[in-house]
Amino acid sequence: MAITLGPNQYGKAEVRLVTVDRSGPVHHVKDLTVSTSLRGELAATHLTGDNSVVVATDTQKNTVYAFAKQTPPGEIEDFALRLGRHFVDAFSHIDQARILIDEHGWDRIPVDGKPHDHAFSRSGDEKRTTAVTVADGRAWVVSGLRDLVVLKSTGSEFHGFPRDRYTTLAETDDRILATAVTARWRYQGEDIDWHKSFHEIRRIMLETFANLHSLSLQQTLYAMGEAVLKQRREVAEVRLSLPNKHHFLVDLSPFGLTNDNEVFYAADRPYGLIEGTVLRDDAEDAGLAWYSLPEF
Amino acid sequence: MAITLGPNQYGKAEVRLVTVDRSGPVHHVKDLTVSTSLRGELAATHLTGDNSVVVATDTQKNTVYAFAKQTPPGEIEDFALRLGRHFVDAFSHIDQARILIDEHGWDRIPVDGKPHDHAFSRSGDEKRTTAVTVADGRAWVVSGLRDLVVLKSTGSEFHGFPRDRYTTLAETDDRILATAVTARWRYQGEDIDWHKSFHEIRRIMLETFANLHSLSLQQTLYAMGEAVLKQRREVAEVRLSLPNKHHFLVDLSPFGLTNDNEVFYAADRPYGLIEGTVLRDDAEDAGLAWYSLPEF
Amino acid sequence: MAITLGPNQYGKAEVRLVTVDRSGPVHHVKDLTVSTSLRGELAATHLTGDNSVVVATDTQKNTVYAFAKQTPPGEIEDFALRLGRHFVDAFSHIDQARILIDEHGWDRIPVDGKPHDHAFSRSGDEKRTTAVTVADGRAWVVSGLRDLVVLKSTGSEFHGFPRDRYTTLAETDDRILATAVTARWRYQGEDIDWHKSFHEIRRIMLETFANLHSLSLQQTLYAMGEAVLKQRREVAEVRLSLPNKHHFLVDLSPFGLTNDNEVFYAADRPYGLIEGTVLRDDAEDAGLAWYSLPEF
Amino acid sequence: MAITLGPNQYGKAEVRLVTVDRSGPVHHVKDLTVSTSLRGELAATHLTGDNSVVVATDTQKNTVYAFAKQTPPGEIEDFALRLGRHFVDAFSHIDQARILIDEHGWDRIPVDGKPHDHAFSRSGDEKRTTAVTVADGRAWVVSGLRDLVVLKSTGSEFHGFPRDRYTTLAETDDRILATAVTARWRYQGEDIDWHKSFHEIRRIMLETFANLHSLSLQQTLYAMGEAVLKQRREVAEVRLSLPNKHHFLVDLSPFGLTNDNEVFYAADRPYGLIEGTVLRDDAEDAGLAWYSLPEF
Repeated sequence: MAITLGPNQYGKAEVRLVTVDRSGPVHHVKDLTVSTSLRGELAATHLTGDNSVVVATDTQKNTVYAFAKQTPPGEIEDFALRLGRHFVDAFSHIDQARILIDEHGWDRIPVDGKPHDHAFSRSGDEKRTTAVTVADGRAWVVSGLRDLVVLKSTGSEFHGFPRDRYTTLAETDDRILATAVTARWRYQGEDIDWHKSFHEIRRIMLETFANLHSLSLQQTLYAMGEAVLKQRREVAEVRLSLPNKHHFLVDLSPFGLTNDNEVFYAADRPYGLIEGTVLRDDAEDAGLAWYSLPEF
Repeated sequence: MAITLGPNQYGKAEVRLVTVDRSGPVHHVKDLTVSTSLRGELAATHLTGDNSVVVATDTQKNTVYAFAKQTPPGEIEDFALRLGRHFVDAFSHIDQARILIDEHGWDRIPVDGKPHDHAFSRSGDEKRTTAVTVADGRAWVVSGLRDLVVLKSTGSEFHGFPRDRYTTLAETDDRILATAVTARWRYQGEDIDWHKSFHEIRRIMLETFANLHSLSLQQTLYAMGEAVLKQRREVAEVRLSLPNKHHFLVDLSPFGLTNDNEVFYAADRPYGLIEGTVLRDDAEDAGLAWYSLPEF
Repeated sequence: MAITLGPNQYGKAEVRLVTVDRSGPVHHVKDLTVSTSLRGELAATHLTGDNSVVVATDTQKNTVYAFAKQTPPGEIEDFALRLGRHFVDAFSHIDQARILIDEHGWDRIPVDGKPHDHAFSRSGDEKRTTAVTVADGRAWVVSGLRDLVVLKSTGSEFHGFPRDRYTTLAETDDRILATAVTARWRYQGEDIDWHKSFHEIRRIMLETFANLHSLSLQQTLYAMGEAVLKQRREVAEVRLSLPNKHHFLVDLSPFGLTNDNEVFYAADRPYGLIEGTVLRDDAEDAGLAWYSLPEF
Repeated sequence: MAITLGPNQYGKAEVRLVTVDRSGPVHHVKDLTVSTSLRGELAATHLTGDNSVVVATDTQKNTVYAFAKQTPPGEIEDFALRLGRHFVDAFSHIDQARILIDEHGWDRIPVDGKPHDHAFSRSGDEKRTTAVTVADGRAWVVSGLRDLVVLKSTGSEFHGFPRDRYTTLAETDDRILATAVTARWRYQGEDIDWHKSFHEIRRIMLETFANLHSLSLQQTLYAMGEAVLKQRREVAEVRLSLPNKHHFLVDLSPFGLTNDNEVFYAADRPYGLIEGTVLRDDAEDAGLAWYSLPEF
């Protein structure tokens, strides 16, 4: 028997980059968290500590900052593609690069009803994300969003599930449905209006969540993915991870009170977790698009 | 010498309460985290484990849920006052009650440009807060907000500070100023439109942050508090805690690049922390308003 | 009416300092998080942005690092006293300094049963803490610990509490008692073996938690504080904040199973919160010892 | 074109289970966080909301608690295998089950130098983990650990890396090396002393980290995995994810001070991230062992 090095990658994680476009009196702020990972002929450093082809993670960080100056980052997909291609092109022993970017939103503070030129407030916790892989002379783009927390106060049922010895859950035809959406979608090609596509996909998912009368969170998940694929030709596949953030009806009967879906206890743990993929059956092969990303 | 019991309190922390007003087709959601603390003649349980006057924290939790059903919570200040008065009135050995409530915001999801009746998305991480103390036949209300993250991309300077052996910081007449506002303000009286007052105070603080050309974060802090006091007679005192969320200019000169306040590194730790109080000199005494709350 | 500046302070929070004592082949590591706050004649910066007496928080950070080199930090109380006295002595408009330090523990990795000279593993999440205030030619030291999580699987009861309309909790003569201890104790004087005192106090609190047959968490709290005061003359006062980390017995009867205190659900929220003070009645006045620290 | 459902799973995440073995006066505590995921013929619920084969996540939670009563959990691998086999065996449309368990450690509180019978303190943040997959009449076991934070104060170098336009990092022959180990190892077979194997693997990884004079974190990673494979025949493969928790030497020269690797700034973000696999080339195929787990 022999022991060998298997798949591996390394890089700099969570480089916090904020850029200000000051080309006019109205400033534009971009707030990104960038993680880079490189793959290639890296056996030497693992086996002997020979670092002759190890692009230092500090260099990767510097490159992120320098690139942000040389050309404004623009859409996160474009910035990730530029970075990924650079690493693969510039270093002969580096075959693959994976760039993850989270974008944090800022809104303009309204003053006297008008958006301020250079004062902003954080939009919330939701992140727009991208994961770009560059390898073999091409690139894969998987974009998405995280921490989009949504809730329906009605229009959700759950019944008809099997009952065994360990089943105590009551069937319900009216419950709160709440989740924190993590979505990733695989694009086909790069000739895409990333900005518009993101905002359309987000809108489609939100509207589907709101409009669908839900019989299970799985049904909602599939409908959200399906709606995106139907309306956005540029998307080949959607992966969703939806925690079922339980809101339990509080039993008020000991206090002589009814509770007609009015008073709920929002639980932290445990939570349901519904994960799934919706895909276009004529889509091109995913290749390296998902490699080293979460399955869902 | 003798050893004695000093100040003490006990209660249930972080009761997660979500209520749905279903009185019409347009639902209204209220999402609160409620913490109750009681004080009184509690020596017996500490000294001997005699719990005859210890209102169980489980009972406190039940009371929160039952009260939310009996009358819709409404504004958090009103709900906290109702709860606090109940505990002090209902239990003869309980002299004081302190109720903390955080309110988490939800926006309606827009569908075809119209806000949905019963589908919502989380507004972000910012919380509206209140801390109500009931004692001695009266009440004190300290309301506020937390996690309001704001940033100015220009309009902030910092210079003229003393230089000693350990000073290396360069003076600047143009820097990013960013902070996460924690504010608490003490109200005078209870005959207040809590909803309107909160939103006006928040607006005033945001506009002041945006408009003030800042020479120090202390100056911004004072201006924010002063503006609130000038415009809102119902407020006696404002306490602010403002972390200086440093955005450091990245030195791009090793790469032959300039950096005219365009590319920044957003640091996590350490951070500056500016804390202060602005008050009206004719305000009534604070009494128990701040007791057991953070100083800033 | 006039608006004025009230109490305020400012400083650098959470400076992460790690020092290595390399004076011999056996290294010693010290891992601290240091926060400094200064108080004084600071009206000018608040009112006009005049920073002529504002010791930059960056300078405060530099001072922490430089002091750690000039003399090894040693016990956190000594390091905090040195820092606090420096700021008050070196700057005439600074009257008070408050230094907070958290110490994070590291254990030596055992290799072939022997502790390694220079390889360590993190001891856990518990922190040893101190909060030192320097003012008016003297100093106050409040030390403590945080995140010491403890549990008793028996030896804890809770009954005899009042029952009202909202009470549903069953009485119990055997429950799990679990908490995460936050303790702070005020020292009298400075001529103290800080290291020994900390470890003795920690041992006393742990042994008391373990040995006391508990009728309420309040009783446990008081006993822990009382034991410290009885055995450690250098301590004037102990403040404790003890979340009651509920472990609820799971109702297994629907599955035809008993549950004799064997299977529990560990809940996140809500939790009970028991807070209290135990003090020596002949102790000197607390002065500024607790100012701006949490009440409990 | 058509749109179809792709890979999916669902379950209950983070069931908090604490069991107490009270069979004698010396209690034993087990503290687990259990997550279950099921896979199978689940198209109906996704496409139409027909839940006739959807074992409710609430039922999954109940099963965890009931199973913990029926037979004490024992080693987490055994408990996960029992749960996984149950779900696949009991429900004909469920083909696969994946059970994740994190175990949280508790130490006995020493009283008068003797470990207490029923009082415990939390061991720290480190978790022992397992991920068991049951499918096709067999099972795969991937165990591991998380949040094992380690540091070497010397015995680590980093030099010889390529320098390009964006490289500023100085070479070093003496630096602090610190990381938080996440390790997962794939077992071959089930006839294994899980307890002993875990503790031996942990010891081997710690000793290797301590003993290896490191020229890169990659070299340390490989050596840790290799040592496990050499000494533990039951392990087929080790995957490691090692953040490089940077400790930067503070530049004290502006203060006229040297810094011979004595005073460091522990940075939060960004951090290096070194991820890799070490495997036995005669190992059996991994099958479903890693499916839906992180790549590293």
